[in-house]
Amino acid sequence: MSTAISPLAPKSVPAMPPIAGVTIATAQAGIKYRGRTDLMVMTFPEGTQVAGTFTRSRCPSAPVDFCRANLPHGTARILVVNSGNANAFTGRKGRESTETTAFAAAAAVGCSPSEVFLASTGVIGEPLAADKFSGLLTGMAEEGVTDGWLEAGKAIMTTDTYPKYATASVALGDHFVTLNGIAKGAGMIAPDMATMLSFVATDAPIDAPVLQALLSESVGGSFNSVTVDSDTSTSDTLLLFATGAAAESGAPRISAADDPRLDSFRDALDAMLKDLARQIVRDGEGARKEIEVRVKGAQSDASARRIALSIANSPLVKTAVAGEDANWGRVVMAVGKAGEPADRDKLAIYFGDIRVAHQGERDPAYSEDDTSRYMKNDTVAITADLGIGEGRATIWTCDLTKEYVAINGDYRS
Amino acid sequence: MSTAISPLAPKSVPAMPPIAGVTIATAQAGIKYRGRTDLMVMTFPEGTQVAGTFTRSRCPSAPVDFCRANLPHGTARILVVNSGNANAFTGRKGRESTETTAFAAAAAVGCSPSEVFLASTGVIGEPLAADKFSGLLTGMAEEGVTDGWLEAGKAIMTTDTYPKYATASVALGDHFVTLNGIAKGAGMIAPDMATMLSFVATDAPIDAPVLQALLSESVGGSFNSVTVDSDTSTSDTLLLFATGAAAESGAPRISAADDPRLDSFRDALDAMLKDLARQIVRDGEGARKEIEVRVKGAQSDASARRIALSIANSPLVKTAVAGEDANWGRVVMAVGKAGEPADRDKLAIYFGDIRVAHQGERDPAYSEDDTSRYMKNDTVAITADLGIGEGRATIWTCDLTKEYVAINGDYRS
Repeated sequence: MSTAISPLAPKSVPAMPPIAGVTIATAQAGIKYRGRTDLMVMTFPEGTQVAGTFTRSRCPSAPVDFCRANLPHGTARILVVNSGNANAFTGRKGRESTETTAFAAAAAVGCSPSEVFLASTGVIGEPLAADKFSGLLTGMAEEGVTDGWLEAGKAIMTTDTYPKYATASVALGDHFVTLNGIAKGAGMIAPDMATMLSFVATDAPIDAPVLQALLSESVGGSFNSVTVDSDTSTSDTLLLFATGAAAESGAPRISAADDPRLDSFRDALDAMLKDLARQIVRDGEGARKEIEVRVKGAQSDASARRIALSIANSPLVKTAVAGEDANWGRVVMAVGKAGEPADRDKLAIYFGDIRVAHQGERDPAYSEDDTSRYMKNDTVAITADLGIGEGRATIWTCDLTKEYVAINGDYRS
Repeated sequence: MSTAISPLAPKSVPAMPPIAGVTIATAQAGIKYRGRTDLMVMTFPEGTQVAGTFTRSRCPSAPVDFCRANLPHGTARILVVNSGNANAFTGRKGRESTETTAFAAAAAVGCSPSEVFLASTGVIGEPLAADKFSGLLTGMAEEGVTDGWLEAGKAIMTTDTYPKYATASVALGDHFVTLNGIAKGAGMIAPDMATMLSFVATDAPIDAPVLQALLSESVGGSFNSVTVDSDTSTSDTLLLFATGAAAESGAPRISAADDPRLDSFRDALDAMLKDLARQIVRDGEGARKEIEVRVKGAQSDASARRIALSIANSPLVKTAVAGEDANWGRVVMAVGKAGEPADRDKLAIYFGDIRVAHQGERDPAYSEDDTSRYMKNDTVAITADLGIGEGRATIWTCDLTKEYVAINGDYRS
């Protein structure tokens, strides 16, 4: 798995400020990888509110089941994440493994197991030996540091070629609060997430139900609007923790989702999740180009979304972009196969700002040379204007290259 | 496009007997390719009954629109097929092109344009210059031969690495009738067909409505049960022509779909379409292995089919098979993402006859060595037993290799 860093990686790493009371520790537990960290523990102060969204897979992993069961309690004290093993499709052993980990984690910070959150990512179907690392948790909880965000991003990687970070400072009422986020995920990425893990923490004093409402809404236009290979993982997990520590310096406590003081926070959360989701796409296995698929003029937003996903998941569209070929015929094909309302004679297709087809045929003004030049960009925007309504949607994906096949044809061995 | 012949190609070509009254001619019209035939004309005697099924794409090609409009008339005299250009998304020019071709074809055999059937396959979005070949049709109709089936199979190829043939002799009542079929298609293959073209002719005296009933039923378990890349073409066309000539030697005329004398014919048609469909999969772009995905124990047949398609279209499952890796975790993932009723703790996964997972975890008796040996076969069967019902379905697909990306990353240029 010695893959070169994606050419689409960010050029710099942001400075991740501490979030008061949030500590981070990482360790080399030797779960699967050697010579790198594969375990991450994050602790939170008492009363930290939590919200989450998870894979819609009908065969979710044991940690996903575990987190789902704990989420209604609404508070979190410790998060334990391992890479190298997904603890998915591991049956009774999988449940025992989450229980062992949860008890050790609860003991480490002196909380109830209902305040523990877990995530695992890596190979499916192999039992996860929790005793390999459960003994480390107390020490990690004690020795955690507030400036460990960069290390946290690295410990949760699997086939990622770079860690994913985002940070923002945003007004909540008259006070500033901080948002820090990390993510991982490179393949098995599709709406409803992938083995896509993301953890966001803030010092904002926001109650869990409000936090959940914000997260559920924001995930639609971010993590649920990216796809690498249409494959949905058993393990996707996005958790948002709010310590409330900013209340000490005067930030208002927010208890209603329609509180207008939330506006900037909501925007910042949207932007952060979109940023992290796009970082995942740009690290898509074998990716050399990011593709932004925009659909407009569809019968409804939902219809536009299905068409955009049909384009974004089409192997023929994705290989064409890999070959820098503005093959709009394949875009038409993908619009057609979506099965959504469409009228060939009203359809227009753009690569970037170049309209290559409209009203059911090739645009006479379309220059092959200009388009070929455009296709050399790192990011390629494909727009399909259905011309029959107001529905719109945007989906981000990446191209499909020989490297994707190489990475995935030889992953487990 | 100089691709080596698929290692999964049939080892021999069948002897295709004549069907009385059906003539075939091929020509090098220079539509796109050089040095090979790209035009095929098949003529039928008066009164030939016809049935068809087409792509479900919402943006079908001009020839698909044309054939759909003619089908209700129920009779056919001439079929014109070109390769190299799909005449899809060509708007008004596309309709003009089908009209020009249809008039020339009708004049060539002295029939109404409503008895003409057309199919085009190749690049999408480029206008098809019908005048390049419409002048050839009269000569081709006159010079057609009854033993031209092998040539017909070759003329309709695009990225295919071998032509696809099937023939059968089958009892209709007390008499034998003949069925001949050809097909093409290698990529953009998914249920609802691909640029998948197939033409079957028989001398059986079967009325058009019965023929249509047979075809519509048979396509479900054959052409609509294969997928190469989940991409549905704008041009998929399957036509079945019945000259009725066997009536002269005493075969009964069939006017009701429930006529018990049809039983053998129905079975033979099913087998032939399945044979042709699997030949297409085995010629899937870059294919090195055929994958048979069987789902059983699902809540319903429809649910089983959706799960089977989810597995068969999963890039991660397909790349694992390419890498000869019995990665059943990815099969679980694909079951999970289908969104159909499933219970992780009742699910069993088999590679061939080897049960690798059951009741929510790895089968303790599962031998990695045996499974690795099995994965070296040309055809790999993956079975998912949901264990919750009686629903079952089978889908055929192929592996996903670097060659697929190479072929499709550089097709148009």
